[in-house]
Amino acid sequence: MKIAGTHRRTIHVAKDGWSIEVIDQRRLPHALVIARLTDVESVATAISQMWVRGAPLIGVAAAYGVALAMRADASDASLERAVERLIRTRPTAINLKWALDEMRATLSPLPQSERVIQAYAKAAQLADDDVAVCRRIAEHGLKLLEAASVRAKGQPVNVLTHCNAGWLATVDWGTALAPVYLAHEHGIPLHVWVDETRPRNQGASLTAWELAEAGIPHTLIADNVGGHLMQHGRVALCLVGSDRTTARGDVCNKIGTYLKALAAKANDVPFYVALPSSSIDWSLNDGLREIPIEEREGTELTWVSGRTADGRDESVQIAPEKTPALNFGFDVTPAELVSGLITERGVCAASRESMLALFPERKP
Amino acid sequence: MKIAGTHRRTIHVAKDGWSIEVIDQRRLPHALVIARLTDVESVATAISQMWVRGAPLIGVAAAYGVALAMRADASDASLERAVERLIRTRPTAINLKWALDEMRATLSPLPQSERVIQAYAKAAQLADDDVAVCRRIAEHGLKLLEAASVRAKGQPVNVLTHCNAGWLATVDWGTALAPVYLAHEHGIPLHVWVDETRPRNQGASLTAWELAEAGIPHTLIADNVGGHLMQHGRVALCLVGSDRTTARGDVCNKIGTYLKALAAKANDVPFYVALPSSSIDWSLNDGLREIPIEEREGTELTWVSGRTADGRDESVQIAPEKTPALNFGFDVTPAELVSGLITERGVCAASRESMLALFPERKP
Repeated sequence: MKIAGTHRRTIHVAKDGWSIEVIDQRRLPHALVIARLTDVESVATAISQMWVRGAPLIGVAAAYGVALAMRADASDASLERAVERLIRTRPTAINLKWALDEMRATLSPLPQSERVIQAYAKAAQLADDDVAVCRRIAEHGLKLLEAASVRAKGQPVNVLTHCNAGWLATVDWGTALAPVYLAHEHGIPLHVWVDETRPRNQGASLTAWELAEAGIPHTLIADNVGGHLMQHGRVALCLVGSDRTTARGDVCNKIGTYLKALAAKANDVPFYVALPSSSIDWSLNDGLREIPIEEREGTELTWVSGRTADGRDESVQIAPEKTPALNFGFDVTPAELVSGLITERGVCAASRESMLALFPERKP
Repeated sequence: MKIAGTHRRTIHVAKDGWSIEVIDQRRLPHALVIARLTDVESVATAISQMWVRGAPLIGVAAAYGVALAMRADASDASLERAVERLIRTRPTAINLKWALDEMRATLSPLPQSERVIQAYAKAAQLADDDVAVCRRIAEHGLKLLEAASVRAKGQPVNVLTHCNAGWLATVDWGTALAPVYLAHEHGIPLHVWVDETRPRNQGASLTAWELAEAGIPHTLIADNVGGHLMQHGRVALCLVGSDRTTARGDVCNKIGTYLKALAAKANDVPFYVALPSSSIDWSLNDGLREIPIEEREGTELTWVSGRTADGRDESVQIAPEKTPALNFGFDVTPAELVSGLITERGVCAASRESMLALFPERKP
């Protein structure tokens, strides 16, 4: 994606040839700050404190974290320590485990002398693969938006999205927003309802910023508003990402996704989930019972950060001093509420049969 | 209700015998500031800028606004001007119109010389009536909480509420929280999930503060969380207020209420609405089509106010500078999602027949 006209990925190897540069997403939308990560610990911090977030991006970041660990010490013990440290950073998104499994499978058989160069090569390949996968998600999702545009008779297609599943959540393109970007390039008129996404406000701070940079019309709404808009026919389709999808199509995504899926079902609004197959956990079925849901600090809810009128970064407390807060990061949308999954291989129903038809190599 | 041990109503005549004192709710939870209103214009400002809010309270505030207008000028023209000015402050809550109709009906037939004293007397009566009505809502709702407590086998009853329908939304007691306060007095163990209620955060700033003052266990959650909690059996019942309820039981309440009602239905969680009958609009049926929904400034969403770590009141912008935001204040929950209405005359189903059985004088 382009920022102020310059193409940029969310993560890349720095000019020094080894350290890793990422956009510090905590600083958006008010400042575009590039953070330099130099060891596995700084990568772990960047993931757990959400300098980088989004299932695809944290997978790639973890892969580069292993590369940095190999650069410091290419031993088996170092590899295991790096994998163990990184896997603990966030519990819900499965891409983290997937990417680390890929790295371990690549590096374990190699002599130590070859591990550094192959670790960087593999991480770069995972990054490139992510871009290619997201681009294919864009192409498959484009057809849905084209059809919606025909139904809208030339009026803008109103898409509702939750959280940020744009290019900031991936290496480039995004998942849920990838079809939106491609449709915009194809001249399809669109308008995106951007859920604020409390408590971390990824909609307000990341999605609104992304869409503005891309010149796509959008409107920020409170998370409470989507149901009302759907009741009044103002949403053509919902399009969200996924942090983990089970083999039967239950979708774990940012907390609040489930409420929008219920409203979509009640109002006959199509509800699509865009995801790379790396975020499918083929080992799980019942998402509600089996997917671990991250619980984060309550202060993410009771304190809000932003910029003051005179341009200072500031945090304000919005609840009484001692108010306890519970802060779940994700919820699970049962497969029956999902109209379809947009993957790099095409669109399928959220069902075991339909998913296996696209990914036959996963048949038991 | 008591604040720091002292009983207080949300609105009352000041010691000077004529001006009106209210809690400036914009300053909560960080400061308890009493605002003094001295003319109809200041009352209109207090209502429209939400120094006072909540359907029952703004009705009583408007009544006192008429009294202040009569004190300045007791003519017919002044009465009409005051009613017209006050009715325009907020479009959705019906109590405003109800209270102003009551005031006009009382004052119009009177000679000008009697209007001031009768206006204050009528406003005081409306305030006292509101307290009595809310107390009866508490008693009827208590039975539901007693039954839930039996089902919970002595464990705390988990109540989920949205926005603030506590005593701050009324003159005293509250609507949705009135049964909670009474149950707490009766020794029933309770725990309240407090929805933050974006964009104005009435849950975080008002409900959490009220419950803490009353010593009732509670936990603040993002508006996005309720569905997840209901999926996991962590909500015994939902209890919300209403700004306007139609003759067939459609409930208009704070934006986001509908999403919680959908989740309650999907997870077999009882969803109750507590309301004084003054907030029933017997002239309307289809809430979705007929109730005007207030649209407020987008800046209520893009800017967040609170207190800094060093104790200053501050506002921070959370979205990019030019992000457009749409800010609806209310949504409509269709009657079929409502388990029951808790009124001052008892609990009834959200249906025309059941409502008319409690209020037979409304039969056409």
